[in-house]
Amino acid sequence: MGGASAEAANGGAAVRVPVPPARPFLDTFRGNLKETFFPDDPFRSVVRERGAGRRTVAALRYFFPFLEWAPAYTPGAFKSDLIAGITIASLAIPQGISYAKLANLPPVLGLYSSFVPPLVYALMGSSKDLAVGTVAVASLLIGSMLGSEVSPTDNPALYLHLAFTATFFAGVFQASLGLLRLGFIVDFLSHAAIVGFMGGAATVVCLQQLKGVLGLVRFTTSTDIVSVMDSVFSQTHQWRWESVVLGCAFLFFLLVTRFISKRRPKLFWISAAAPLTSVILGSVLVYLTHAENHGIEVIGYLKKGLNPPSVTSLLFSPPHMMLALKTGIITGVIALAEGIAVGRSFAMFKNYNIDGNKEMIAIGTMNILGSFTSCYLTTGPFSRSAVNYNAGCKTAMSNVIMSLAVMITLLFLTPLFHYTPLVVLSAIIMSAMLGLIDYQAAAHLWQVDKVDFCVCIGAYLGVVFGSVEIGLVVAITISILRVLLFIARPRTTVLGNIPNSRIYRRMDQYAEAQSVPGVLVLRVDAPIYFANASYLRERISRWIDDEEERTKGKGETEMGVQYVVLDMGAVGSIDTSGTSMMDELKKSLDRRGMQIVLANPGSEIMKKLDSSKVLEMIGHDWIFPTVGEAVASCGYMLHSHKPGTVMDSAAAHENMV
Amino acid sequence: MGGASAEAANGGAAVRVPVPPARPFLDTFRGNLKETFFPDDPFRSVVRERGAGRRTVAALRYFFPFLEWAPAYTPGAFKSDLIAGITIASLAIPQGISYAKLANLPPVLGLYSSFVPPLVYALMGSSKDLAVGTVAVASLLIGSMLGSEVSPTDNPALYLHLAFTATFFAGVFQASLGLLRLGFIVDFLSHAAIVGFMGGAATVVCLQQLKGVLGLVRFTTSTDIVSVMDSVFSQTHQWRWESVVLGCAFLFFLLVTRFISKRRPKLFWISAAAPLTSVILGSVLVYLTHAENHGIEVIGYLKKGLNPPSVTSLLFSPPHMMLALKTGIITGVIALAEGIAVGRSFAMFKNYNIDGNKEMIAIGTMNILGSFTSCYLTTGPFSRSAVNYNAGCKTAMSNVIMSLAVMITLLFLTPLFHYTPLVVLSAIIMSAMLGLIDYQAAAHLWQVDKVDFCVCIGAYLGVVFGSVEIGLVVAITISILRVLLFIARPRTTVLGNIPNSRIYRRMDQYAEAQSVPGVLVLRVDAPIYFANASYLRERISRWIDDEEERTKGKGETEMGVQYVVLDMGAVGSIDTSGTSMMDELKKSLDRRGMQIVLANPGSEIMKKLDSSKVLEMIGHDWIFPTVGEAVASCGYMLHSHKPGTVMDSAAAHENMV
Repeated sequence: MGGASAEAANGGAAVRVPVPPARPFLDTFRGNLKETFFPDDPFRSVVRERGAGRRTVAALRYFFPFLEWAPAYTPGAFKSDLIAGITIASLAIPQGISYAKLANLPPVLGLYSSFVPPLVYALMGSSKDLAVGTVAVASLLIGSMLGSEVSPTDNPALYLHLAFTATFFAGVFQASLGLLRLGFIVDFLSHAAIVGFMGGAATVVCLQQLKGVLGLVRFTTSTDIVSVMDSVFSQTHQWRWESVVLGCAFLFFLLVTRFISKRRPKLFWISAAAPLTSVILGSVLVYLTHAENHGIEVIGYLKKGLNPPSVTSLLFSPPHMMLALKTGIITGVIALAEGIAVGRSFAMFKNYNIDGNKEMIAIGTMNILGSFTSCYLTTGPFSRSAVNYNAGCKTAMSNVIMSLAVMITLLFLTPLFHYTPLVVLSAIIMSAMLGLIDYQAAAHLWQVDKVDFCVCIGAYLGVVFGSVEIGLVVAITISILRVLLFIARPRTTVLGNIPNSRIYRRMDQYAEAQSVPGVLVLRVDAPIYFANASYLRERISRWIDDEEERTKGKGETEMGVQYVVLDMGAVGSIDTSGTSMMDELKKSLDRRGMQIVLANPGSEIMKKLDSSKVLEMIGHDWIFPTVGEAVASCGYMLHSHKPGTVMDSAAAHENMV
Repeated sequence: MGGASAEAANGGAAVRVPVPPARPFLDTFRGNLKETFFPDDPFRSVVRERGAGRRTVAALRYFFPFLEWAPAYTPGAFKSDLIAGITIASLAIPQGISYAKLANLPPVLGLYSSFVPPLVYALMGSSKDLAVGTVAVASLLIGSMLGSEVSPTDNPALYLHLAFTATFFAGVFQASLGLLRLGFIVDFLSHAAIVGFMGGAATVVCLQQLKGVLGLVRFTTSTDIVSVMDSVFSQTHQWRWESVVLGCAFLFFLLVTRFISKRRPKLFWISAAAPLTSVILGSVLVYLTHAENHGIEVIGYLKKGLNPPSVTSLLFSPPHMMLALKTGIITGVIALAEGIAVGRSFAMFKNYNIDGNKEMIAIGTMNILGSFTSCYLTTGPFSRSAVNYNAGCKTAMSNVIMSLAVMITLLFLTPLFHYTPLVVLSAIIMSAMLGLIDYQAAAHLWQVDKVDFCVCIGAYLGVVFGSVEIGLVVAITISILRVLLFIARPRTTVLGNIPNSRIYRRMDQYAEAQSVPGVLVLRVDAPIYFANASYLRERISRWIDDEEERTKGKGETEMGVQYVVLDMGAVGSIDTSGTSMMDELKKSLDRRGMQIVLANPGSEIMKKLDSSKVLEMIGHDWIFPTVGEAVASCGYMLHSHKPGTVMDSAAAHENMV
């Protein structure tokens, strides 16, 4: 089985598998760094310019995309943005107030948060369709995480300042992720995990609204379904029929408008205007019937005027700083994941590109400046951005319009909300949340990938029966475990020959594939890493044992396995544990009297095998570019080494072609 | 670009890529479960038997391998095992006493731990070469982790009981890993990480011995190099020249014997007998010169008699239980990793198989029973097993012989150690540790895989400058991050055609590969998961943009990219994020007027694409078994759709062959 015979078998026309020339380590390292952190080559436009002045302008245009689209702004675009802006403002006002209540914060904060952050985003953001605002899930999380240590009723000033500090930390964390180009971390939350997590969070938020709808005063602070049901059903005598009637009526109204808009997409503005309409109707109703004296809770006094500065309110001292830091990071990541997903979805739909890391910087800055101006955590909620898109927005100017509308409300219109019943806010939240429970996506997951469905359900149950944090941890852990398990247990398959060809395909997939006597062709479907090297070595041994048993069972005419061909086409990468494994495999096959042959190794594999001396050990002549050539060579060796066999010259020629 | 034309281009002889028949989910799930947890099919021997009685016997033989080799035991094997057993006993006695001191435990515990655990292992273990004993690294860890909360000098009884409890928890954890078939977890500590971690731990242990060698009384409890150096050099006036002279002399003697044994492997017994010789020489020296009155510390009184029971000493109440639990789990995993690695290495060397999970059960039981009989954490240290192997052991009986030798020592010979200077024990530890600092392995890592080298150095520095726990966390984190990053940034390459063939190879690896006009062939080198789906979509877009730029630069005769062929040969698996990505890619290519073509998708990919309806969308006719056929079909389409092109009939024929 020397090298010379293998070459003769190839008829001297072998296409050798070349070992790539050595590249200086720094080159490779720099290349990998670039691919990891700058895959989309974002600074191409800056670097292209010549001269410091032009480069500064290009850099400014990179960080402030507003400088790119503003000069090209047309009156037609303004008209579209005006309509879109007013539409989303009509959503922003009631939703802002409702979600602030969800976070146990003063309702006017919801309006503040729809004033300053959208302006910042319009300057720095890249998406043309994203509409900025607060989100229910993050508001709930802030409420439950801060509320677990500081009571919003007993200590409202401290609670408020902690909310601002948490928003500041969230913004810093988000901007850092963007600046350090670590945006890919957000990719580690799989879509299945997000569907489950969001569904669970939406369920939990709806459960929380039962307090407002039933008019209960005392309620559990836990969010899980068991505590909530217990709270609800142990106080049945406290339910207020007025709240229930009012809440159900408005909820019905909102659900009907949502249904109509789904059926007829042109009438999207109906469901967009419904929340504000409910607020107005509800206020009028309470005003006329003086229902606030009959047990209906109302918003009450809403401070007039723009955002007061809150820089001095930020707390950077223990013990509360750690709480704010933890809250900020967790809510920041969740808000960021949603904002980036929204930006990407619409960009792909409208066929433009956005730089994920740049978006993160924009969202982070938005939150940092928001924390200085009495706003709490904002991002780009999907529902509001969808309305923006449907309303025909053209640029981020729609956010500016919304911001102006909210400003007018803050300056002049806050007294109008004095009589707005809280029950209406609860109904608005519930109808928005029901849209977040994406059972269709879950059904699709069940059909396509049952493991992803389990991830989804696991996250959902974790949130509903545990808490939002537990659900998030469950979702992330299952997602990462799944990836690690795939690496740890890669697929190995036996390949067989498609008759009358040199093609080798998986025998479990192609019924016509046949095995070749004396040769076992195996294919490894994953990179060979420390995590799977031992498993692979044992599995390959087992394949060989099984094949030996199978052929020996057929009698003496069948020879055992003499050649083991490893198809390395799918082995993307190999580390030192992998090269050790190849070394051990070679030695163990030598002891069994078998020859190892490699087919189609990539250039990185060749490099590693060469530098670890395994290539020398196996012998460069036993490495072929395709499985077909490898098996042909083995076949030639088998036939020429069996003196008693009648060798058909045609068969020999076929083996050499 | 309809389906019919693609088929015509293939000349009607296309080998279609079949969609595999649907398997019931439970079948697939059960299959995957079996492959993940029972890859080596360990119960094959049990299941094969018929009848409950024979199955019980087979199960007993599975859990107690001793029942397999004991009946076949020969006098020749006994002779080999006797020699090997006595050799390793001569190591066990001095090392046991030294390592127990390292853990701040009474020295006699080292002897107890070489009595009971080896007997248990001989009954339940599968390795023929593994020699049981305590290890320096685990002893150090126990000393530092328990010592951080409970002082061994102020509270020796509590400290001792905590050590037993930690050993108990370690044993339970190890046995559970084995019973739950979770052994693959140990694989996640890569070889590079272990080399760095062990080297760092060995360095730290050597630094700790400076206390004994220099004869210092007060010493830092921290293990990092800065604290130790500070302790040493701030007390230079306290150094005792007697200790230094004695220590250096014995260290020199031990290193010389180690060097001799390395040069001449036949003289392995020289380095094996050296520690016991040093102990005897040292005791004699001290006895004759009464050096214990001149400042040389000696072991002193060593209790006579066998292991006292310690079941009642186990502590299961807070606050200390959590400390014992944490120590037990961490030291248990490290000890397990070493024991399994040793077992596997020798099994592979001697060409037999061991079941990793069964070994874990054996090691775990060994520790549980050890904790009941005043032993602390044991495993199969590599150095001792190597001596066992070199001494010619045949079965685990060598452990029984060693155990009997230790028993004789415990019953009769403990007074002999009364005058043994601690300095000799320090020298023994230091010489053993210097063998653990595997700089050759580190140099090999630098040559083969620089990232693995960084993992190794990171773990080393983490241990030496931080603490052992920090080093372990650094090692595991870098290892897992590396795997995740590979998944998150998979390699995509452009393939080109090797002239005069239908073979397509990477253009960056094969200089002769050439691109095909109008067709861009891309290859993805990893499974498509949530972690990399977005990145892949953007990267593929960028490849297309680059190719468009390149071809447009060449003038009007070159057409732009019309077909994008994706070689899916290396895509082992795809989840719902991946199928969404394929869906989005298809739609985005449609908008750009390009056709997507898939080549060589595996059966799992076909199944997922089919159930997510992406297969329908792409069209089954645009999926080919090889890249060659895919490009041929595109080429045919290109030529037949360009009316103005002079089509060479030979070229057309070549495209169709």
